[in-house]
Amino acid sequence: MINTLYCKDENKGIQKQAFDAICKEQESIGYYGLPEQDIDPILAYVNTIPESVETIAVIGIGGSSLGAKAVYEFIKPVRTLKRKLCFFESTDPINITNLLDTFDIKKTHFLVISKSGTTVETFSVYKYIYAMQSDATSYTFITDPGSPLEKYARSINASVLHLPDNVGGRFSVLSSVGLVPLALCGIDIAQLLLGSKSIKKSFFNDGYMKDTLLRKAYFYAKHHAQYHINCIFAYSESLKYFCEWYVQLWGESLGKHQRHSAFNVGLTPVGLIGPKDQHSFLQLIMEGTRDKSVTFIKIEDFCHTEIIPDITLPHLESLDSLNKLPFSKLINMQCDSALEALLEQGDIPLDSISIGTIDEKNIGMLIFYYELLTSLVGELIDVNTYDQPGVEAGKIILKKKLSQQKR
Amino acid sequence: MINTLYCKDENKGIQKQAFDAICKEQESIGYYGLPEQDIDPILAYVNTIPESVETIAVIGIGGSSLGAKAVYEFIKPVRTLKRKLCFFESTDPINITNLLDTFDIKKTHFLVISKSGTTVETFSVYKYIYAMQSDATSYTFITDPGSPLEKYARSINASVLHLPDNVGGRFSVLSSVGLVPLALCGIDIAQLLLGSKSIKKSFFNDGYMKDTLLRKAYFYAKHHAQYHINCIFAYSESLKYFCEWYVQLWGESLGKHQRHSAFNVGLTPVGLIGPKDQHSFLQLIMEGTRDKSVTFIKIEDFCHTEIIPDITLPHLESLDSLNKLPFSKLINMQCDSALEALLEQGDIPLDSISIGTIDEKNIGMLIFYYELLTSLVGELIDVNTYDQPGVEAGKIILKKKLSQQKR
Repeated sequence: MINTLYCKDENKGIQKQAFDAICKEQESIGYYGLPEQDIDPILAYVNTIPESVETIAVIGIGGSSLGAKAVYEFIKPVRTLKRKLCFFESTDPINITNLLDTFDIKKTHFLVISKSGTTVETFSVYKYIYAMQSDATSYTFITDPGSPLEKYARSINASVLHLPDNVGGRFSVLSSVGLVPLALCGIDIAQLLLGSKSIKKSFFNDGYMKDTLLRKAYFYAKHHAQYHINCIFAYSESLKYFCEWYVQLWGESLGKHQRHSAFNVGLTPVGLIGPKDQHSFLQLIMEGTRDKSVTFIKIEDFCHTEIIPDITLPHLESLDSLNKLPFSKLINMQCDSALEALLEQGDIPLDSISIGTIDEKNIGMLIFYYELLTSLVGELIDVNTYDQPGVEAGKIILKKKLSQQKR
Repeated sequence: MINTLYCKDENKGIQKQAFDAICKEQESIGYYGLPEQDIDPILAYVNTIPESVETIAVIGIGGSSLGAKAVYEFIKPVRTLKRKLCFFESTDPINITNLLDTFDIKKTHFLVISKSGTTVETFSVYKYIYAMQSDATSYTFITDPGSPLEKYARSINASVLHLPDNVGGRFSVLSSVGLVPLALCGIDIAQLLLGSKSIKKSFFNDGYMKDTLLRKAYFYAKHHAQYHINCIFAYSESLKYFCEWYVQLWGESLGKHQRHSAFNVGLTPVGLIGPKDQHSFLQLIMEGTRDKSVTFIKIEDFCHTEIIPDITLPHLESLDSLNKLPFSKLINMQCDSALEALLEQGDIPLDSISIGTIDEKNIGMLIFYYELLTSLVGELIDVNTYDQPGVEAGKIILKKKLSQQKR
């Protein structure tokens, strides 16, 4: 993975302080330790699920689904996987019934994922499915040790797996929350962790990533008042759900009250897919308000050799320049062209990330890179990166509405 | 359709000027006339496609695909449609080959949609598919009258349909660009136009929509320097691609150099789906920088009666308040709760749109509502709403790269 920055390097002193703060955070924040975890218990659990199970259905929302979905949807297009993975993430009745029509409930294992066991979306769907399939062996619950949900699961003799300590939902993809569904589908979770570990080592052991991440995070923090919309422009349809994961990670971590002021601050994430969104959002970046940074992500080797045929279309001879070009080369040329066009503007902060290919190791690298970047920026804009107090108000109002409901 | 605004009404004089400007625009901008068009030629064309065709594949990008996709993906979950519709919108080789695996090319009709006939994405994919299927009767080309693409299509004896005059890509969903693929799938395009016509009439004939749209557009324009991120929070998975259509419409229309100044201006669109994104983006809206407006969209009647079963889970008795509640009621209570929680903040501009149900008429209303709103805001922030000069620079760089390419 190569990350090319086009911003200048500033204020090494504050960068050093942020690095020291992150080093210290490792004592209290759980996600930093995930790359080195022992995955044997997860692999042993995976072997307990019968071969006859064809589908893994996650009942979970937000941090309980977005990470596994990002990895699964990245790998799936290039691999024949052992099982299908699907996600119940909504209370939309049409979505629930249509999703249920896509698999055989008798050949499905359900993973119910919730830290506390009180998530409205998760348990309304769980109750609905449980009424159709009450065999406890069809369910595994992933929750905090000792939670009411664990007690419930034990009471019906279902399997329980634990979340590690101090790992928040949006930082949990490399914990049981992401690894269990992914391993059940035959995704190589050891390689996923290996990728994340390589970024971690490079960052904490004075490697290439230390300087790069600090410089980028400092730039984002320092200029947050002007450039407060941070776009990812990923040139592969496979990265669509990675973008959704990034939106949650970035938005929910960095949109906060400052710890030591009365200010509301925040950096707004936008996920874009190239070349498609060149025909949608690019105009706004090029000519709109100068409030956006852009990170281009491209894949060096798609491992696909499809070539544009050497055909001349009468009256459309100008398109002959496309002939004999591999699509994988074209898409990367489109990425480079968009980057160069934006660079020429001179006042749009840009960088580019290049990953090797579509596999577990590379997505593991991207994930840990973005988690570290989020932690660094959170530190530098003085917010608590790991909580989300703003979502409570709506939950309280809903609870009140539910209790007043006549049925 | 009901649109409830929570912003105050300001400056009727400027609102009146904007209304007059839009009335005048009807002479030169084509999309305003689309609700009244004669669809008989489209319906006659649709009857020429053999019943044996099972799949309609659109080869097109941006304005040539997003509109039809928004309508199709809205209706599909609730209807058994006559044919499947899919979209080739990328040069990603994995996406192209995987999409080709999902249908029988011999039972597919391809719609190649391009105004000029020079879109790189469209024609690289077209050449690739044409090398596999060279039967001209499998293709229809939708393009500008007299374009090189029309000449090409005539030269191979393929069908040609025209784009109406002065209708830009992102405003073209209600023209042949959107209506042809939708009608081929059995979607009721007469109802779609009827919905759009009802909004048009209400706006231009001093109805409810005139006051509402003017007031909202004025607020967005007046406060664009502070509230320049405009979120849609739609409580239905079916509106996911409507959000993508909105992102193009809003971003590409409003991100511009001002006509009479040296300023770059722009309003940034964000599409969110509830309740899922309550667990992702909501924290940023609640506690982040006060730079976002939010429009909640909800569907009054999902026409789905699934009910949360009356089951008590031991240790999770607090969830009993969900029992016997229809999912359609729960999702709308979640929407109301999020809206109320944001209203309590007092400094986040909000409004809510409520549509009747999931059908052609309602999506036609939403589409025309957003097109009118975009035109009004464009007028009020002094940009040319209908061009997109910013995307040319990247195309020129790509063209140069292609010509230098050795093969």
